[in-house]
Amino acid sequence: MGKIAVIGCGLIGQGWASVFAQAGYDVAMYDTSSQAADRAIVSMQTRISDMAEFDLIAAADAPMILNRIKIRPSIEQTLDGAVYIQENGPECVDTKKKITETLDAVADENVPIASSTSGISASRYCENISGRHRCLVVHPINPPHLIPAVEIVPTPWTAPEIVSAAKDLMIRCRRETIVLKEEIDGFVVNRLQGALLEEAFNLVGKGIVSAEDLDKAICDGLGLRWSFMGPMQTIHLNAPGGIAQYVERYAKMYRDFGIGANDATDWTSIVNDTLQDEFENKTPVAEIPDAQLHRDRKLMALLRHKAQDAPDPSII
Amino acid sequence: MGKIAVIGCGLIGQGWASVFAQAGYDVAMYDTSSQAADRAIVSMQTRISDMAEFDLIAAADAPMILNRIKIRPSIEQTLDGAVYIQENGPECVDTKKKITETLDAVADENVPIASSTSGISASRYCENISGRHRCLVVHPINPPHLIPAVEIVPTPWTAPEIVSAAKDLMIRCRRETIVLKEEIDGFVVNRLQGALLEEAFNLVGKGIVSAEDLDKAICDGLGLRWSFMGPMQTIHLNAPGGIAQYVERYAKMYRDFGIGANDATDWTSIVNDTLQDEFENKTPVAEIPDAQLHRDRKLMALLRHKAQDAPDPSII
Repeated sequence: MGKIAVIGCGLIGQGWASVFAQAGYDVAMYDTSSQAADRAIVSMQTRISDMAEFDLIAAADAPMILNRIKIRPSIEQTLDGAVYIQENGPECVDTKKKITETLDAVADENVPIASSTSGISASRYCENISGRHRCLVVHPINPPHLIPAVEIVPTPWTAPEIVSAAKDLMIRCRRETIVLKEEIDGFVVNRLQGALLEEAFNLVGKGIVSAEDLDKAICDGLGLRWSFMGPMQTIHLNAPGGIAQYVERYAKMYRDFGIGANDATDWTSIVNDTLQDEFENKTPVAEIPDAQLHRDRKLMALLRHKAQDAPDPSII
Repeated sequence: MGKIAVIGCGLIGQGWASVFAQAGYDVAMYDTSSQAADRAIVSMQTRISDMAEFDLIAAADAPMILNRIKIRPSIEQTLDGAVYIQENGPECVDTKKKITETLDAVADENVPIASSTSGISASRYCENISGRHRCLVVHPINPPHLIPAVEIVPTPWTAPEIVSAAKDLMIRCRRETIVLKEEIDGFVVNRLQGALLEEAFNLVGKGIVSAEDLDKAICDGLGLRWSFMGPMQTIHLNAPGGIAQYVERYAKMYRDFGIGANDATDWTSIVNDTLQDEFENKTPVAEIPDAQLHRDRKLMALLRHKAQDAPDPSII
């Protein structure tokens, strides 16, 4: 399948190495600290055997998967023959710039240089790098070996073929890709999390509800559906006429809560311009009753799973 | 165990009737339309047999549970001997006021009159009702027979004993209670959902991401953890030093996204004033590594469940 270079052997680098090796790639890993690199191998053994215990990989495959991952002593050896580079350095613009310059100087032409950064848009460090057309962010959610979603964020200079190559590779690695059309601070995942947290802190800070009870609103409430259905599809199924009718019925109510920063976000125009057609293609309004039944069956299967996977009261 | 009155035989009333009957209560249901009441019985048969199919109730118990639910022809007969009333009328202040006046006139003294309303604070219709001390909102999440979370929202006049009685009853019915200390538009659940949706519409409306990809950020990303752990406990485990350290590291980043409406929400003060102690009691910082391992095991168990509960591409 080819070889992938993973730069940085911390938890994120380790998670990526497991993902790539599971998909059949050889993985070369590098860290400026050789101790960190040694620890990574031990830690990945644990991860991979845990995954086998939970049937996420076949137990018989575990040694082979681990065997695909090698620590290399230099950037040159790590990048030699690599078809894709995943960089997991510290969250600092100057460091990213330095690392990326080095990677760009050493890597074969047109090999994507993807950063795992959760907060730094790649344009902030790659503008003056000669290979900026192959730089982008491919942001996993922690822990990367377990959470399938990854965000792919091009800079204004990233070549479309580089975005496609990164996306195709992620799909081969059984990741769920979220492709951003342009950079925005926080990308999508952390902006959604931030919006929820902002309102959570608002409610707890005003003394309306305890943090413990607030958590139940998600883990015994909204989070159940959201573990198998996104928030947009959720509202599409929450009105007999689909998302357009949901917005017609409830947009004003939500607006009156005074939550959003941006008064210019007009749900009605957005739904009329694009969403109504997009969702009609995905789940036509005529099929909503069937989709609701299906959703409730998935909810029941999840509740059965939760009852069997007995909760530990210390952390739930 | 006693008898509970359910007013209104629509989907919410039906869901409640299943919840109460499962917990062992006799349930008397009333609807102004006798046709709606008849349809409710048929619909509840399906619900209860679906739940048995998914092991959420024992198949042998299903007929007994259904048998506890009776349609009554008048408010008087429905309320006779009831220890708790759950009202599921239309979402209209005037209608709520009328219904609640009638219930208050007929019901035994100090029996809680709880409304399922998702949007109307009870103070908006009960101020001039003589039994306003026993009126409150007990808001389920649809479908009520499957989602455990319920919000309990007192008015300024609701007696503390009424709140306690409603909470105790909900706990006996194996509901997860979110108790609000005061009324706020949208309560907690819909405000959290609204905050997430507002940012979702913002991102999709600006063309940053498609709705389909945005949905993946939740159902293949954040929503996995949130199905068994709330957003506050999630961030407590996302920094080695717990929630206080998480806020120290990331509050400014989230603030810079410009998401929240309320610039006065100061995460740092809130965490220092209350959350740090609350979470130290719940999951001491020293136990965070163990709690992280436990979280990852729950995540793996969920991924195995999702892989087995094969997704239907038409709705996911």
